[in-house]
Amino acid sequence: MKIELICTGSELLAGKLNTNAAYIGSKLLSLGLNLSYITTVGDKKSELCAELQRACGRSNIIIVTGGLGPTFDDITVESVAEVLGIETYAAENVLNSIKEFFAKRAIAEIPKINERQANVIKGAKVLENRFGTAPGQMIHFEYKEGEKKIRKTIFLFPGPPREMQPLFDENAEPFFKSYHSGIRKNEALRIFGLSESAVAEMIKPVMEAAGFGEGGAVEFGILASGSIITVKYSVSGSDEMLVDDIAGNLKFELEKVLDGNIFGYGSDELADCLGKILIENKKTVALAESCTGGLVSKKITDTAGSSIYFKSSFVTYSNESKIKLGVKEETLQNFGAVSEETAKEMAECALNAADGDYAVSVTGIAGPGGATKEKPVGLVFIGVASKRETNVFKCSFHGTRKDIRERSANTALDLLRRKILNDGAAKNAKKMSAQILKGKKK
Amino acid sequence: MKIELICTGSELLAGKLNTNAAYIGSKLLSLGLNLSYITTVGDKKSELCAELQRACGRSNIIIVTGGLGPTFDDITVESVAEVLGIETYAAENVLNSIKEFFAKRAIAEIPKINERQANVIKGAKVLENRFGTAPGQMIHFEYKEGEKKIRKTIFLFPGPPREMQPLFDENAEPFFKSYHSGIRKNEALRIFGLSESAVAEMIKPVMEAAGFGEGGAVEFGILASGSIITVKYSVSGSDEMLVDDIAGNLKFELEKVLDGNIFGYGSDELADCLGKILIENKKTVALAESCTGGLVSKKITDTAGSSIYFKSSFVTYSNESKIKLGVKEETLQNFGAVSEETAKEMAECALNAADGDYAVSVTGIAGPGGATKEKPVGLVFIGVASKRETNVFKCSFHGTRKDIRERSANTALDLLRRKILNDGAAKNAKKMSAQILKGKKK
Repeated sequence: MKIELICTGSELLAGKLNTNAAYIGSKLLSLGLNLSYITTVGDKKSELCAELQRACGRSNIIIVTGGLGPTFDDITVESVAEVLGIETYAAENVLNSIKEFFAKRAIAEIPKINERQANVIKGAKVLENRFGTAPGQMIHFEYKEGEKKIRKTIFLFPGPPREMQPLFDENAEPFFKSYHSGIRKNEALRIFGLSESAVAEMIKPVMEAAGFGEGGAVEFGILASGSIITVKYSVSGSDEMLVDDIAGNLKFELEKVLDGNIFGYGSDELADCLGKILIENKKTVALAESCTGGLVSKKITDTAGSSIYFKSSFVTYSNESKIKLGVKEETLQNFGAVSEETAKEMAECALNAADGDYAVSVTGIAGPGGATKEKPVGLVFIGVASKRETNVFKCSFHGTRKDIRERSANTALDLLRRKILNDGAAKNAKKMSAQILKGKKK
Repeated sequence: MKIELICTGSELLAGKLNTNAAYIGSKLLSLGLNLSYITTVGDKKSELCAELQRACGRSNIIIVTGGLGPTFDDITVESVAEVLGIETYAAENVLNSIKEFFAKRAIAEIPKINERQANVIKGAKVLENRFGTAPGQMIHFEYKEGEKKIRKTIFLFPGPPREMQPLFDENAEPFFKSYHSGIRKNEALRIFGLSESAVAEMIKPVMEAAGFGEGGAVEFGILASGSIITVKYSVSGSDEMLVDDIAGNLKFELEKVLDGNIFGYGSDELADCLGKILIENKKTVALAESCTGGLVSKKITDTAGSSIYFKSSFVTYSNESKIKLGVKEETLQNFGAVSEETAKEMAECALNAADGDYAVSVTGIAGPGGATKEKPVGLVFIGVASKRETNVFKCSFHGTRKDIRERSANTALDLLRRKILNDGAAKNAKKMSAQILKGKKK
């Protein structure tokens, strides 16, 4: 079975990252399936029709993203209709849901231009879009290959990722699952604090022991995105218990070699995992950010429910605002805003001001300007304060301003994660040894 | 002239983002050129050959990325050789530079596997790769179209972005610059505060007057990304002055219909444009963020040099931290944290605490939890305070937590942008009328 993806939209030809292709590719992979081709075409009908024609010939399932919007350059529905030789009609129920969509936004009359979006290919299943006005469509059709007729399928999805993704999950995913036979288990480990090649070296013995590369049941992949490394592995077979067993074993072995560097599983984000640890340990956190300028707080509050453990953040971008937070003027004068001493005071002042259990501070040179010979771009100090002690970490990051800020924020989250886990472990060890002592005394 | 891109690599079909396509697309755009197609294929020779065959037929310049590595699944050179019917040879000088590459890394003997990378298509220009062992290649060939022979070009580039990008910049870019005949001007307007379909309706008369869709010299496109709308237009022709004139006129007409909703041009970000306005007006800003949790500050400090106008931000996620900032306890008790009154006090307290010229506050329900009947998910209050007055805007946003936070942050930036421009205009008007009065008195 061949599956192919056609992405329309001139912006994708002009420098926009195609995140839909990545999303669909990795979704299919998790189902044990693969895209055979991805084609990107502009908004010209003749070109889109030519690609559709070709795809109908060589693939069984064709996914088209984009071109379902209300404007003149949205041509997907009419192109597919033309290639399949099927008419379209204005679907009453789609028109009604478009009306509802606008009514919810207190717009009484739907813009004339949006009526086009109610055009549906005859016989297509309409795939409801809760996040926009363009519904998706699923069309089954018969393709003649010589004497034979083959049943094929086209999915039409809107281009904006936030509309495409739920539509894909709700409609294409169950469709592909039903298509698929055999058992396949996909797992992923999320790692921070190691380089991609270090991870590759560390897991090599586990991969070899699992028979990777011998055409067996186990597949591995390593993906670096920013400073976060994902180790993906999948196990396939026909016996569910055996697949589970192999996958469980692999997880155990990988955890052993990667140890505390694993912060999460699947698609976990660093901030989500930190949040869980804070909740488990009933701790709260406050922040004092300089060079990250709010990015650490943004990451923490990306998680719904973070108000349980997140108190407040002081984005002290200027020296003046650092002094207002409580950093001493002498410290700034003697050591500078980017220094171990300032990071320490920022963390401690934030801890006091917010009355939290932990506070993290970040101060550094994100660049491209602001560097000196002694303090180059990428020099960042991260402070982690608890009521008992404050540790400051000196880091040296590379890349663009964006890279450095991203890396700094992730490192701050990870350092706090490790600190809380260590404190927890120390506390448990203390409890245990106290119990042992108690036992001995008896 | 048609340019197309073929990307090889099974990882691109399995969820990896195709950053090479984005890089090349935006590079060409900056040269006034466009990709017509992007095709991604796996590592199968038959499939790559079929794509190459087709590309040779329909395009003048073909760029191929990936598949130049040393392993069995790197098949680009042999596939291109096969499709063009040209032989390959082991190039002595390439072999030498591969040897040097390994020598620099203190590896005396080059791995046998890397010798394959010295295979060059006869007549091809070798493009030196300083960042890896796989050189690029540029091949000119003649393509027969009926009686006519057309000179066409294929570029081969390695897949890793850090190798591909310098090779593209050093070789393809000068080539495209010299190739380029005729003049094409690409422009873009960036808009906030209007829906995609509203923008489409507004610019329709301008598009029609410019002869869009009649196969003329003018092309338009509309792109919505999050809440930001981009109107792209391009003008082509052979006379530079004429092209400039048409483009200038279009800009004038589009600005007239879209008015103050345009915040920038090209690929401008909202926060960058706000920054410029703050610098021009010699003003500073402080923030008090609740539901956006640092996102507004993060956006402002994405811009290098923002320390000139950005003072500090108070991410007051808890009620306790709002009170510490100076919000009255009664206000929180009587109206709640998500209210016009709290937004007003947050903005005013931030203004005072940071001693800025402007302060913006955001408080709302980003969801998915925390909603009540009176205060649904998406209800957000944004306060904009200057030393003279404070305005609070009640907004109602839709979508996921991420959407609502993103929209809230952009709206906050845009409201401040409009406020400063208004204040500036009012001041100028006052100055002007004072001058008129003075004139009259004389």
